[in-house]
Parts: sequence; C-alpha cells; structure tokens
Amino acid sequence: MLLYVLDLIGVAVFAVSGALAAGRKRLDLIGVLALALVTAIGGGTIRDVLLDRHPIFWLADPRYIVVITVSGLGTVWLVRHQRTRPHETAMLVADALGLALFSVSGAQIAERAGISAAGGIVLGTVTGAAGGAIRDVLSAEIPVVLRRGSLYATAAIAGTGVYFALEALGVARGAATLVGMGVVASVRFAAIWWGLQLPEF
Amino acid sequence: MLLYVLDLIGVAVFAVSGALAAGRKRLDLIGVLALALVTAIGGGTIRDVLLDRHPIFWLADPRYIVVITVSGLGTVWLVRHQRTRPHETAMLVADALGLALFSVSGAQIAERAGISAAGGIVLGTVTGAAGGAIRDVLSAEIPVVLRRGSLYATAAIAGTGVYFALEALGVARGAATLVGMGVVASVRFAAIWWGLQLPEF
Amino acid sequence: MLLYVLDLIGVAVFAVSGALAAGRKRLDLIGVLALALVTAIGGGTIRDVLLDRHPIFWLADPRYIVVITVSGLGTVWLVRHQRTRPHETAMLVADALGLALFSVSGAQIAERAGISAAGGIVLGTVTGAAGGAIRDVLSAEIPVVLRRGSLYATAAIAGTGVYFALEALGVARGAATLVGMGVVASVRFAAIWWGLQLPEF
Repeated sequence: MLLYVLDLIGVAVFAVSGALAAGRKRLDLIGVLALALVTAIGGGTIRDVLLDRHPIFWLADPRYIVVITVSGLGTVWLVRHQRTRPHETAMLVADALGLALFSVSGAQIAERAGISAAGGIVLGTVTGAAGGAIRDVLSAEIPVVLRRGSLYATAAIAGTGVYFALEALGVARGAATLVGMGVVASVRFAAIWWGLQLPEF
Repeated sequence: MLLYVLDLIGVAVFAVSGALAAGRKRLDLIGVLALALVTAIGGGTIRDVLLDRHPIFWLADPRYIVVITVSGLGTVWLVRHQRTRPHETAMLVADALGLALFSVSGAQIAERAGISAAGGIVLGTVTGAAGGAIRDVLSAEIPVVLRRGSLYATAAIAGTGVYFALEALGVARGAATLVGMGVVASVRFAAIWWGLQLPEF
Repeated sequence: MLLYVLDLIGVAVFAVSGALAAGRKRLDLIGVLALALVTAIGGGTIRDVLLDRHPIFWLADPRYIVVITVSGLGTVWLVRHQRTRPHETAMLVADALGLALFSVSGAQIAERAGISAAGGIVLGTVTGAAGGAIRDVLSAEIPVVLRRGSLYATAAIAGTGVYFALEALGVARGAATLVGMGVVASVRFAAIWWGLQLPEF
C-alpha cells in the first residue's frame, strides 16, 4: 500500500517534468499531456514488455492515467495562472526520489522474475531513466540521462548495484531496498548540489 | 472484409507520408522504404506489443509489407518521373481517415482485451499517432503529433473518448464506431482548414 | 557454439561503435556504457519482443552485459591512454561482419518462428540495424541506416533476401546462411570502398 502510494507520487513527479519540458518547447495542451504520459510511464512500460509482464501496469490500473492527466494539467494551470513554476529545488528532490523508487523497484521486479543481478541493474536503470530519455528524444534533444554531469544513470546503477550486493551479503531485502534507494538519491543530490561528475570520455 | 481493406488503405496512406518525409531528407530508396515501413506499422506494432497480441499483425500477414513496399516505391516513381507530388489535400484527407480508422480500431482492440476506457483512449491514440511520431524522431524532428496547431493527438483522443462515451450510454457498437471515426476526422479537418487550435502552454 | 562466440563478437563490435559515438558527443563514462549497451542489444531486443521470445536474450544470459561493459570501458581506455582509436578499417570490417551475422541470424530466428519471408527480411534487417539507429536517435542525429550512401539496410535486405531465395530453391540451410552473410558483407564493403550507392529520392 505504501509502495503503491509512493509509486503514484513518482509517476506524478515524472509527469510534471514531462509537462515542463513540453512548456519549454511551446507545445499545446495535448502535447503537454502526451509528453507527461511518456515521461511517467515510459520506463515501467519498457520494463514490463522486456519481462513479459502483462497486462502492462498502466493498462491494468487506470489510476495511473488519471494521476498523470491531473498532474500535467495542474502544471499548466500553475504556470499560466499563478505565474509560478513548481519550485526548482522541490522538483529536483522529488525527481531524485522518483528515480530512486523506480530504479530499485524495477531491479526487484527483475529479481523476482529470475533475472541475474547484471540484468537487474540494467532493467532497474531503464525503469528509472527511460521515461526521461524518451521525453528528451521526442523533444529532439540528447537525453539528460546521457549528458555529462547529470549522474542520472550513474545514480541508478550505483543504487541498484548496492541493492544486489547487500542481498548477496545476506542483508534483509527491506534494509537493502532502503539503502539502495538512499544511494540513488544521494548520488543524484551530489551531482546537483556539489557539481560531482564522472570523467568525460 | 471491408475493415481489412480500409486497414490496408490506411497503411498505404501512412507509407506514402513516410516516403515523402524521406524525400524531404534526401534519403536513398531503402531509406524511403524504411521510413515508409515504420510510419505505417509503428503504431499498430506498439499496440500489439503492449497488449501481448502475437503474432504482431504484419508478421502474421505479409500483405502489409507488400502494400507498404509498393506504396513507397510508387511515391518515389510519381515524384521523380511525373514531376508531381501526391495531391496535398488528397493526402491530408486520406491521412485524417487513416488516423480515424487506426485510433478507433485500436481503442476497440484494447476494449476487447479487457482494458479500461482510459487505457483504451491512450492505446487508440498511440495506434493512430505513434507511427508518425517515430517517422519524425528518425528524421531528427519534434513529432508533428506534439506540435501546436496539428490537433493530431487531440483528434484521436476526442474520437476514441466519444466512442467509449457512446458505448457507455448504450449506443450500439457499430454506430459508436462510425461517430467516433467521424469525430477524429472532423477535428483534424477543422485544424487543417480553419486553423483551429488548442491553447499553447 | 561457434555461432554463440560469433554472436558475442558481434555484440562487442557494436558496443565499441556505440562507445565511439558517445565519445564524439562528449558523454561521461556511464553515458558511454549506456550508448554501448543500446547499440549492441537494441536490434536483438526488438526482434525478441516482436517474436514474443522470452526471456530476452541478454536477460537470459548475463555474459552479454559483461562483454558490452568490458568493450565499452576498453574503448575509453584505448582512446584516452593509448591516444589511439580502434583502427577505422578494422572497425568497418568488423561492423560489416556483425551486421551480416545479426541480420541473417535474425531472419533465421523469424523463419523458425513460422514468419513469412517478407516478415523475415524485415525482422532480420531490424535485428542488424536497429541498435545503430537507436544509438543515432539518442545522439540526436538522423540514423546512419537511413542516410544515403551507407547501404546499411540495403546490405541486410539483400543478404536476407538471398538467404530466403536460396532456401526456396532447395539450397541447404548452411550454404544459404553463408551466402546470405557474404552478400550482406559484400554490399557493405562495396559502399565503403567503391562509394557504391542507391539512387537518391
């Protein structure tokens, strides 16, 4: 139940980030909803397709589409009528928590499907980061995930890697989950606030 | 049978639009066929993958690939040897009818698979609009579907929404289908001829 | 066993080409790995999803991810510390062999799944060429596959077409496979060294 609520919050946050990207490209209302939708459900959809989990999560439960529609339209309303954008720092923190939640839960779903740790790290990272990558591709930009200095995929790889390492060491799943998510969020925060980054190619 | 013929016509129209996009980017013959193919089968393929319908429609029936190849090569021949393009208005009308057909039939296929109306509207819109979006992404452009003033996704959402609403009100499926398709085409025509558009973000 | 080793070599070559593309875009280390990964497994993943083959090949066998990681990081190390790039000609030859291997084996997998020759040619071409197309889309460029003069998709279509034609004529599968792969590689070599190309649209 808690996980489900957190999941819906993560979806809402990603929908807001998709809607804001649509605003930067001056799309119309439906363009906003479309970009909010693919950002919010893209990663989980690819995860479900690759793992052959049917029905796809948002086809099984229409609440996801409702939450995304409300978040996307709410973002438009806020920006136009309140002449304010969602607070930048609040958005980054929420987005980091969404990434933490989606990547580690994606890795767990892969694990339960009998996938190896290597495959689970890739699938967890895809679950967390692919929605934003599709958003950027549709906006005709190089995905933030790939860009230097974001540590976006790095955070997801580190956190899911720690999750699998702790489990291999015998740590309980609940504790490993929390530590893994903490690592994802921490790496991302370090990139945002301290400018931490990986060596460039 | 009628639906199957209409389906092949829709595929042919989308193939022509992909071939013309390839022409604008000065691709070679195979580039033309590749872009014609993804434009024509992209939406339906994503629909089938998300609904776990196998075999995918164009793998089950090779006629689709034949129709697309003939349409793509025919477009090249027309443009080069007849020094003429397919008539602009005819193309827009045909494309609107293709969108109407694919989005409402996509929504029906989702409905028959037990998906909710909200999921059916999204899947129907994806069926109608995703092929063109992939065409634009491969051409390194922001998809027309997302751009202001096209009402492309809007038309599909409105038409599939009307379809589900009429069914919920007890209208017979055949009538709801025709009205839904009519709404899709009408909204799109309104955007093309009267410049109707949604508020910008 | 030989096929499996060749498959891993093909994956490694495609991973190197993804890593080099990431270098041109000045991505960081994880961006390099991400682009190496999608280039190497993109085509086979789409093939498996469209044919409903589960588990997806790289989820079933973690060796693929290991090979890709080593190839990607090795490329970075070579370029930075040896101040050398993988030899251009060697790369092109290896890439042509990878395309030959993946497209014909993709066509065979489709054939074994009961797909028609037309569908097998498309699926084989997708298996060989889609990874590079995704690499280019993520780099915000028009895919090389589509660009004039590369004969990339052309080579795959010709080779898989010859494979199906020979089988229809009663040639043994092993011989048809070798000739098909030879055609793919030869067409690609002709494009690279003699500037052979198709008429432009």
